[in-house]
This record gives sequence, structure tokens and C-alpha cells, in this order.
Amino acid sequence: LPGPASGAGAGCSLARRCHRRSVAMPDVPFLPFCAFLGTLGLLCVAMVGTWCQHWRGGFSLDGSSRTFNWHPVLMVTGLVVLYGAAALVYRIPNTWSGPKLPWKVLHGSLALGAFILTVLGLAAVFCFHNSQGTPNMYSLHSWMGLATVLLFSCQWVAGFGAFLLPWAPTWLRALYKPIHVFFGSTILLLSVASCTSGINEKLFFSLKNGTTQYKLLPAEAVFANTLGLLILVFGVLVVAALARPSWKRPDSDSPDSRQVRGTLGG
Amino acid sequence: LPGPASGAGAGCSLARRCHRRSVAMPDVPFLPFCAFLGTLGLLCVAMVGTWCQHWRGGFSLDGSSRTFNWHPVLMVTGLVVLYGAAALVYRIPNTWSGPKLPWKVLHGSLALGAFILTVLGLAAVFCFHNSQGTPNMYSLHSWMGLATVLLFSCQWVAGFGAFLLPWAPTWLRALYKPIHVFFGSTILLLSVASCTSGINEKLFFSLKNGTTQYKLLPAEAVFANTLGLLILVFGVLVVAALARPSWKRPDSDSPDSRQVRGTLGG
Repeated sequence: LPGPASGAGAGCSLARRCHRRSVAMPDVPFLPFCAFLGTLGLLCVAMVGTWCQHWRGGFSLDGSSRTFNWHPVLMVTGLVVLYGAAALVYRIPNTWSGPKLPWKVLHGSLALGAFILTVLGLAAVFCFHNSQGTPNMYSLHSWMGLATVLLFSCQWVAGFGAFLLPWAPTWLRALYKPIHVFFGSTILLLSVASCTSGINEKLFFSLKNGTTQYKLLPAEAVFANTLGLLILVFGVLVVAALARPSWKRPDSDSPDSRQVRGTLGG
Repeated sequence: LPGPASGAGAGCSLARRCHRRSVAMPDVPFLPFCAFLGTLGLLCVAMVGTWCQHWRGGFSLDGSSRTFNWHPVLMVTGLVVLYGAAALVYRIPNTWSGPKLPWKVLHGSLALGAFILTVLGLAAVFCFHNSQGTPNMYSLHSWMGLATVLLFSCQWVAGFGAFLLPWAPTWLRALYKPIHVFFGSTILLLSVASCTSGINEKLFFSLKNGTTQYKLLPAEAVFANTLGLLILVFGVLVVAALARPSWKRPDSDSPDSRQVRGTLGG
């Protein structure tokens, strides 16, 4: 076992700690990891589409269960995969030098695309419930999902107002940025938890009679359970990539670091 | 809008970036935050106990649904709350100086306690299923939960072998530590996702007939949905606390930092 601390630990500077900690982590290259994540995300989209097309009757806009089928497809595509892509924009090393504005616009546009798909996904389930006379918003899944979408809408509006509109003061951007980053990861985790509870719930609804009961674990159940696990893996890996210190943008041109540099005299 | 980067960003040192980034984040004191987390965790335990006692008939060991009731209580208590406490041990500033071994033992013991409660929680649901003739391990909830418990058991055994037994070489500890840290947060996120899908599933099972249908949102549903949201908030806040750079232990006496310090000549 290593001996007790020599007493240097508590006194060493934060900067040295950060540096040592980052060096101690195994070096994973970002772009291959990102390509893997992209493949995994596309696999999730393909699998949720296949599930709804092959086992759940496909898609329509007539208020039937085929209207509902848009819900899982749009949520996984928008609130998980496209959202994850939006969140990772600033981790691409190409974005670290040169003007930041184009990348801000890309980040905001991908997030807006994710938000539009999400709202359409919500519309699909509300339309299905209303045409079937089923109440909305009673299950824990629906509470989690709606909380996620509400947070996402606040996040997008606040991010647009603070970082893309020109009138936000520097101190406000500096104050809001870590909050935006925190909720960026949080919303993805909530969305992944919402998706897995939703897949679980849908399988109980759909596979309850005859020879295709969920508890008999038919092919559809194995397929959709696997999809749920892959969505979890995707979400955890995106959040881990976002948290990794050496993959973060140096942020030399962001208002918060400029402000702090000014404070520190850097 | 801030102007384009001056070009200093890509070239600035990692240590300076870490320092600026940490300074730019709002300063939240750890111990009050930890007290809030503890209160939230205890509230989750109290609520899951109340749910099972007040609405689901209480507890027994006879293989009935009252045996099942141990499952949510033990999982929330062990795999979420006690696990979260174990994960946060090294964030307590008192642990940052002096010998590390007692804190390692505390961390490992709390994790072992969490693991024992988790195994008892699994035993409760298997006992219930077996006595009712219900198959085990078919739902996405069960797959997620079992994956979580399997990862947790690997994590505990590997952590014990690498960090508490004396024979692990320094390079192995340095290699494994970031993996242990990554899976520490990942397991908590999986466990929270498992809990919420399980609460959702249990409410659909329990509230399906008469005037207490889930879709009519009786008091039990509101109570258990709220519990699910609180568990999510607890998990997200613990993972956020673990990821926060300024709350991390300086790690002066850990083998990885010693090794790196040696490499850097520090």
C-alpha cells in the first residue's frame, strides 16, 4: 500500500493538480471515439425505426398506434442522438481556433433540430392518447420526459439569449456558462432515463397477450431491450466525453475566460 | 458578441486552462451541498419505505408481493443512496491530508454495504418471482438492473484488489484509477435509470384495476412519480459533485500522481 501523504497534497496548486490528473488519464483520441459514438447513435436510430416498422406496424398520421410509433423514433433521434451531436460540437479540436461564432451557430442549430424533433415526438404521443381517449401525463415516464423537454426548452432559449444574441453582458455569460454546461449533460441523462423507461413501458403494453408476452422474451423484446441498453451506453459515453478535461475547448475567446484572465492579470 | 479568438487558445497550457476554468465556475461550498444531498437521499429512502408500507401492504419474507416490497427499498437505499455516499467520500476536504488508508477503508466499506443491500434486493425480487411462477430477467428494467449490479460487483472486486490489497503494482493502480472513477459515476447513472424504470413498471403492475388505475393518477401514483424524480435529481447531483474539479482530492499520495510527479520530475 502507498504510504501516508507527505503533506504536500492539500497545499499544491490547483493548476498542478489539474495537470497531473489529466496526464494520469489514458490517452484516448477524440475523433475515433467520436466516430464510434456516431456509429452507435445511428445504430440506435436504425434500431428504433426497425422496431416500430417491423414489430409495431409502421407509421401513419391517423391517431392510431402507428401515429404513436413516431414518438420513440423522434425522441431517440432528436432528444438523444442529435442532442448528443449538438453537445459534442465544442469538443471537436477544429473548433478550438479561429472564430467561435460559426460553431456557436452549429451548436445552436443542431440543438434546435433536436428540439423540433422532440416537440414532434411529443405531438405524436399526445395525438395518439387524445384520439384513443387515454389520459396524458400520468406515468413516471411521462413526468420524466416532460421535465426533460421543459429543461431543454429553457436551456435552448437561455443559451440563445446569452450566447448568440449580442446584448448579453459579459458577467451574465460568465455566470450562466457553467450552468448551461451542467444542464447540457443533465438533460441528456434525463432523456436517456426517459427513453429506457418508455421502451420498458411500451413493451409491457404491446406484449401482453397470446404467445408474444413480454415475460416469454420474444425476439421483439430482446431487440428492444438491446436498443435500451445501447441508448444507455450512448448517453453515458457522450456525458463522459463532455466531462473529459483534455477534450474541452481551451475557451480563450469566451467572455468568461477573458473576464477571468482580466481579473488575474493574464 | 465576443470577437474571434486571438489565437492564444490552442497554444495555452492545459494547467492554465484548468485553473481559469475552475475559477470561472461559481463557488458552491461542498459541505452544505453534501448536507443537502444527504437530506435528499434520506428523503428518497423514507419515501420508498412509505410507498411500500402504506400503499403496497408492507414487508414480509413469505414470497408474496410483500417480499417483493423489499426490492425497491433495498435498491434505492443500497444502489442509489449508500452508493452515492460511498462515491463522495474522497470529496470531503478532511480526507485530503493525512493517511489515505482509513478513507479507502471507509469508501470500500460503504460500497460493500451498498453491494450487500443490492444483493438482498435482488434476492427479494427473485424469491417473489420464483414463488409466483413469474419468469426472471425479461424486462428492460431487469436487464439494466442486472447490468448495473454486475458492473458494481466487478468495480468493487477490482477496486479492492487494486487499491486495498498491498500487491498491486503502481503502474496498475495508475492505469486502473481513471477507469474506476469513470465506472463509479456510470454505475450510479445506470442504477438511477434502473430505479426509475422499475418504479414506472411497478406502478403499471399495481395500479391497473378499479378506481386506482395509474392513468387516473391516484395519490400513490403522484407520490411514487415524485419519488422517481427525486431519485433522478439525487443521482444527477452526486455525479455532478463527483465531476466538479475543485471538489476533487489533490491526490498527492496516490500512486498515479506519485508516478506522474516522478515522470515530470516534480
